[in-house]
Amino acid sequence: MYRLSEREWQAYTEKYKDRARMLISCPDRPGIVAAISHFLYQQGANIVQSDQYTTDPETGRFFMRIEFDLTNLEERCEVIKAAFRPIAESFDMDFSLVQASKRKKVAIFVSKEDHCLLELLWRWKSGELYADISVVISNHPDMKETVESFGIPYHCIPVTKDNKPQAEEEQIAAAAGADVIVLARYMQILSPRFLDDYAMRIINIHHSFLPAFVGAKPYEQAYRRGVKLIGATAHYVTEELDAGPIIEQDVQRVTHQEDVETLKQLGRQVERTVLARAVGWHLEDRVLVYGNKTIVFP
Amino acid sequence: MYRLSEREWQAYTEKYKDRARMLISCPDRPGIVAAISHFLYQQGANIVQSDQYTTDPETGRFFMRIEFDLTNLEERCEVIKAAFRPIAESFDMDFSLVQASKRKKVAIFVSKEDHCLLELLWRWKSGELYADISVVISNHPDMKETVESFGIPYHCIPVTKDNKPQAEEEQIAAAAGADVIVLARYMQILSPRFLDDYAMRIINIHHSFLPAFVGAKPYEQAYRRGVKLIGATAHYVTEELDAGPIIEQDVQRVTHQEDVETLKQLGRQVERTVLARAVGWHLEDRVLVYGNKTIVFP
Amino acid sequence: MYRLSEREWQAYTEKYKDRARMLISCPDRPGIVAAISHFLYQQGANIVQSDQYTTDPETGRFFMRIEFDLTNLEERCEVIKAAFRPIAESFDMDFSLVQASKRKKVAIFVSKEDHCLLELLWRWKSGELYADISVVISNHPDMKETVESFGIPYHCIPVTKDNKPQAEEEQIAAAAGADVIVLARYMQILSPRFLDDYAMRIINIHHSFLPAFVGAKPYEQAYRRGVKLIGATAHYVTEELDAGPIIEQDVQRVTHQEDVETLKQLGRQVERTVLARAVGWHLEDRVLVYGNKTIVFP
Amino acid sequence: MYRLSEREWQAYTEKYKDRARMLISCPDRPGIVAAISHFLYQQGANIVQSDQYTTDPETGRFFMRIEFDLTNLEERCEVIKAAFRPIAESFDMDFSLVQASKRKKVAIFVSKEDHCLLELLWRWKSGELYADISVVISNHPDMKETVESFGIPYHCIPVTKDNKPQAEEEQIAAAAGADVIVLARYMQILSPRFLDDYAMRIINIHHSFLPAFVGAKPYEQAYRRGVKLIGATAHYVTEELDAGPIIEQDVQRVTHQEDVETLKQLGRQVERTVLARAVGWHLEDRVLVYGNKTIVFP
Repeated sequence: MYRLSEREWQAYTEKYKDRARMLISCPDRPGIVAAISHFLYQQGANIVQSDQYTTDPETGRFFMRIEFDLTNLEERCEVIKAAFRPIAESFDMDFSLVQASKRKKVAIFVSKEDHCLLELLWRWKSGELYADISVVISNHPDMKETVESFGIPYHCIPVTKDNKPQAEEEQIAAAAGADVIVLARYMQILSPRFLDDYAMRIINIHHSFLPAFVGAKPYEQAYRRGVKLIGATAHYVTEELDAGPIIEQDVQRVTHQEDVETLKQLGRQVERTVLARAVGWHLEDRVLVYGNKTIVFP
Repeated sequence: MYRLSEREWQAYTEKYKDRARMLISCPDRPGIVAAISHFLYQQGANIVQSDQYTTDPETGRFFMRIEFDLTNLEERCEVIKAAFRPIAESFDMDFSLVQASKRKKVAIFVSKEDHCLLELLWRWKSGELYADISVVISNHPDMKETVESFGIPYHCIPVTKDNKPQAEEEQIAAAAGADVIVLARYMQILSPRFLDDYAMRIINIHHSFLPAFVGAKPYEQAYRRGVKLIGATAHYVTEELDAGPIIEQDVQRVTHQEDVETLKQLGRQVERTVLARAVGWHLEDRVLVYGNKTIVFP
Repeated sequence: MYRLSEREWQAYTEKYKDRARMLISCPDRPGIVAAISHFLYQQGANIVQSDQYTTDPETGRFFMRIEFDLTNLEERCEVIKAAFRPIAESFDMDFSLVQASKRKKVAIFVSKEDHCLLELLWRWKSGELYADISVVISNHPDMKETVESFGIPYHCIPVTKDNKPQAEEEQIAAAAGADVIVLARYMQILSPRFLDDYAMRIINIHHSFLPAFVGAKPYEQAYRRGVKLIGATAHYVTEELDAGPIIEQDVQRVTHQEDVETLKQLGRQVERTVLARAVGWHLEDRVLVYGNKTIVFP
Repeated sequence: MYRLSEREWQAYTEKYKDRARMLISCPDRPGIVAAISHFLYQQGANIVQSDQYTTDPETGRFFMRIEFDLTNLEERCEVIKAAFRPIAESFDMDFSLVQASKRKKVAIFVSKEDHCLLELLWRWKSGELYADISVVISNHPDMKETVESFGIPYHCIPVTKDNKPQAEEEQIAAAAGADVIVLARYMQILSPRFLDDYAMRIINIHHSFLPAFVGAKPYEQAYRRGVKLIGATAHYVTEELDAGPIIEQDVQRVTHQEDVETLKQLGRQVERTVLARAVGWHLEDRVLVYGNKTIVFP
């Protein structure tokens, strides 16, 4: 198979074994950056990238993403978190500190369309998505052979009107331990409880430029409206359909010549690109959610 | 002034004095192209470009745009139209035949935002829009001096709640003879009667990627939704607000950093580009309306 | 496997069994369109799309692509070609007439990079490239398993300094009968004789926005120059390296943050998109070569 | 005239009177961010945005841009600079500290093409370019009236083979005090001495996607090569022609239909957009030069 060799994964893991990423969000006030960077300096960290964003003065919220290198990160990570806690509390911060070399566990849900799934698998195998794809869950058996050829377990859990709650129990069990769930054209609604368990950790691809063409059959809607661009939107899933925080969007030019089938075909390219970008940014801890919006650090 | 000299206009007019454009629309059936091209050949025409589009078999409608050169077009144009009429009738065609060297008369409506107006004036003066801009009509006096510096009459017709019908009478009088009306960020609703008089000859620029953010304050809506692309849409105006046939759309990437003011500023660049393209295509007879959609020939 | 079922291919083949495509190129003069369309009308054809382009008056060359439907095309195709020949001769035309339902045979050459190959295979299996991929030829064994899992023969023909002519003989034998050869990141120079046999039927993807960064290591060159966009170019291969007629190009925005490895990774997405588009257009007979340029009909 | 009222400029100036921007570049090592942010905190500054970039470990150079608010900035600016100097020295920093409310002085050079000049003037008058355009210098008289209608002095300094050194003396005198010089399609070479005086403060727009089509007549070159995208490049001017650090680039899709004149026309839109973006970023102190490349902070 065309997979990244274990040797190559290990080279990456080795290269970034001392690389940490810190995400911070708190009310804005003077001294935040000074406190954080002083703390990191004391720990012996070398900041390799940092980006900061403050919302408008009225709402006044501060967001930061820092990448730093720190010798023996593996052993010291928990100690550092504990040592940072008092600073976090004094500034009323939400914060996370993760090791860049730890692969996040990804569970992918899919129905019958395979293009988004294959894009993710392909980028994963070529080393562009640094993650463990722990399972693919589908309500159809169609992609079992393909997925398993990548060495990934495939759970076919049919969903019908009658078995929905039970099917979801099985899905939750199959996805157990996932850090993030990707709906790669999964055409079923998840229950509020499921959404709550994975709040801002479920990424969906919607096959339109939201908020245009919310709901079903967006390409049919786009065709009828005669738009000159079609698009796709990757967003975190919330209870309100197609209304969660948008992570990424892109578009593709079309003309009067395209029928619905061709729109779908062109749209597939945008869908898989947009979803792969959004998943990549999430895996690299570049996305922070603020209200119903995302901050995507470069 | 930075205008195309009269000498340059004349060079263009001279170069294309024998260039004609024919737009045809009819039910699809065999023999249409043969009939048209045989007719043109008999007249001595040389076809320099032709494009054709047929809708799906169910609706089965045929659309064509032909550019051809014909010696002494000016004198022969009406005769040719008359000679073509029997063919048109036998195929149940709608058709138009225009001389490329005849400048269409354009009336521009504007409120307080000047960027779309200036883009049109600038492209006109640099020879990119081959037209006569016969008048600019506004409900505000602000741009009088600028417009007149281009040698174009400026009619300031204030519109209030009370004088709407009368103001529109004045507008109609001021625009008399216009082949096309461009709403270059004109923030007033036109009456059904006005729309009817200029059916598919009024081009509006809407400051969003329609059908997203229909109605007022689209940039505020886009900001609240947290989209990653903002857009603009040029469309023919129909009675239903922001729902007419779309001529052109484009988008601009934005990030979480942009506030509403910056979205508006970035949006202005897209708006003026999209409107200028749509107006240019209309002036070159590239746009055919079919149902609520446009066919834009390349 | 995630392949288009034979049933779906057959549906396509059935749907377009009477669809023909005609490509014509000749010196410009009045009456060409009339002659062609009259001929097709006499044969009972219904033109469903036609596009025409004439170069500037000095060079005066006429190009046309016509799609038409004709009952019993399969049986009548050769007869029609013969019947058209006198017209073609009288206008000094080059012309081709192909059945849309006939799948072209494609041979793909690849070295070690798999992204362009996989994109083609994926689009082929999903029905976006209507073709027979008859063989994949490589100078490395790496992708044998993947290619064979698509049901396609894989020929590993190692190329060294010493065995070049002999290796090429083997390649030519392996590719025998191919209508088009695609170099999907194949990093070896082909001999003039090979190029001659497949003139304007070998499509290469170059990993830069040509003519910038001709030759080896374009991403390294782009990195050193500090460009803000990277690109890819699909072109027909001619004897002069990276100088053949360009079919398609596209770009991707980059920033100072990207190192060479990231440029390559981002570039891979552009490369595979650009190559897949170019191959698709070639398969649909949309590309005509004129001098060192292409005409790509919409 | 359609200008930003003095009242609006003042509103901006007032709003940002306490906003400072700091640009820093130094060898990378731990503690830089801590030292800077501690210093700013001590001064009572509130950091509103900060972005940092470190080159690869081998070259190891650190770059940072910080925006912060500080009460009474105007009075305290010089004192703060002096107080920061010891820190700067201890880290071997290059640094600059500017007040966001201070408008930079811009001198624009232009020849006969007016589109880039007009775009800059339009954006300036609409408040998108916060600067003082102190003078427009041209080797032709053509745009005198237009420029003066914006209230800007126009110096026509003809340049011939014989008077080059003397003409440049006049240009230097006319531009005296400029913080940045913009070559808005100025088609003359500047002397090494001139370039040296304004090192990395002269922005040129080149009408191609550099490094493709270096030198004269890029659209003619692009037409002959048959590219499918044309572009423009804004860069700092250095002694080697068209080889200075690139600030911004963009492209526009074209087809076989476009002749050289149409390429130029389409190219004008890209040129003016790209130049205006680059000038805007320079005015907002977003661009740092590193070797022959730029870092453009978001």
